[in-house]
Amino acid sequence: MSLTSREAGRRPRIPDVTIKRLPVYLRALDEAGERGVEIVSSAELARQTGFTSEQIRKDLAYFGAFGTRGVGYDVGTLADRIRRILGLHRVVPAALVGAGHLGTALARYNLTRPHPVRIEAIFDVAPDKVGTSIEGVTVEPVERLEETVRAKGCRLAILAVPAPAAQEAAQRLVAAGVEAILNFAPAQLQVPAHVQVQHIDLGLELESLAYYTAGERLSV
Amino acid sequence: MSLTSREAGRRPRIPDVTIKRLPVYLRALDEAGERGVEIVSSAELARQTGFTSEQIRKDLAYFGAFGTRGVGYDVGTLADRIRRILGLHRVVPAALVGAGHLGTALARYNLTRPHPVRIEAIFDVAPDKVGTSIEGVTVEPVERLEETVRAKGCRLAILAVPAPAAQEAAQRLVAAGVEAILNFAPAQLQVPAHVQVQHIDLGLELESLAYYTAGERLSV
Repeated sequence: MSLTSREAGRRPRIPDVTIKRLPVYLRALDEAGERGVEIVSSAELARQTGFTSEQIRKDLAYFGAFGTRGVGYDVGTLADRIRRILGLHRVVPAALVGAGHLGTALARYNLTRPHPVRIEAIFDVAPDKVGTSIEGVTVEPVERLEETVRAKGCRLAILAVPAPAAQEAAQRLVAAGVEAILNFAPAQLQVPAHVQVQHIDLGLELESLAYYTAGERLSV
Repeated sequence: MSLTSREAGRRPRIPDVTIKRLPVYLRALDEAGERGVEIVSSAELARQTGFTSEQIRKDLAYFGAFGTRGVGYDVGTLADRIRRILGLHRVVPAALVGAGHLGTALARYNLTRPHPVRIEAIFDVAPDKVGTSIEGVTVEPVERLEETVRAKGCRLAILAVPAPAAQEAAQRLVAAGVEAILNFAPAQLQVPAHVQVQHIDLGLELESLAYYTAGERLSV
């Protein structure tokens, strides 16, 4: 919903919706690779991911992965290509702001699944959290945000702070070089056009899901 | 990504993508109402929500809210209409499975923002969590899931359990009458076609965001 924030900025030619699907393809390819599969068709990828073959072929064509008609895609080559497109062929250091229950859950989630995106810096304002360690990462005072984010080269950040603290935290992250933010705070962020924000708003998710349980069933 | 699970089932005529935008419109309308605004144009709603006027007019037309050309939509009437479409004009009881850090964060989030979706039942397997209280809701053993979910009439549920526990929890929720699941577990759920699943997969979110920080910049 905040993807429009990029539109005026340095714009990748691959649409955001395609970028969002690439990790799903990557996961399916990695799973196929683990099963020893070497070639996969778009129909097979469609079955695994729930997207249509047409969608998959169109998405992959953006970066020149056309496969071989009647045969399919080379699993290892395509996975490697997607991994490089996404920058996941190397470790992506990330910063986490907010070490409450949500932040702690995110940090643990991150570290219990081997993942190229690694939370390498955690910040909080609460004196009782600062200095504690979450899965090996020491929680630092938020005063050190700019310095540590720059030193660790974090260009990706996760915001798990209360709504009133979100905008300031985002601004400080951006000033320190962050280019993409996963925002869990129930607040709309104002960020420069070159910064990509993905907002996970739990309230909105629950409100739209309510429709399927209690909403009016329309037969327009 | 799991929205296709509904396709073969009882199908609402409003597209899922429209349903996902309705809470955003509702929030903008409520904010306008709080500012004393009585009539709002689609252009104004576009400015507030980041969607286009055309998209908004098309979405609202699904349920017969056409506004008045050159004037706009009546804020109170439209908000009320959307609230009823989504079933948010009354309390929507929800169940939460998993009272770890993530579940606790979700329960607190839910209760610190006045919200029609209310977590009224919480379940966990850990003996040290059962019997504790999160924001006034007592954590029950997962053995009581079916009984409590039925008794409280929860048709919406949030899954915040580890991946290996997700499918069984989902099946038990569905058997107890749940029709919509917000799934935070990194696992694809197999559910009947009438059940709507919204999957929030933190790994996928971070992987797609990595593109904007470290990925190849293509100029196809």
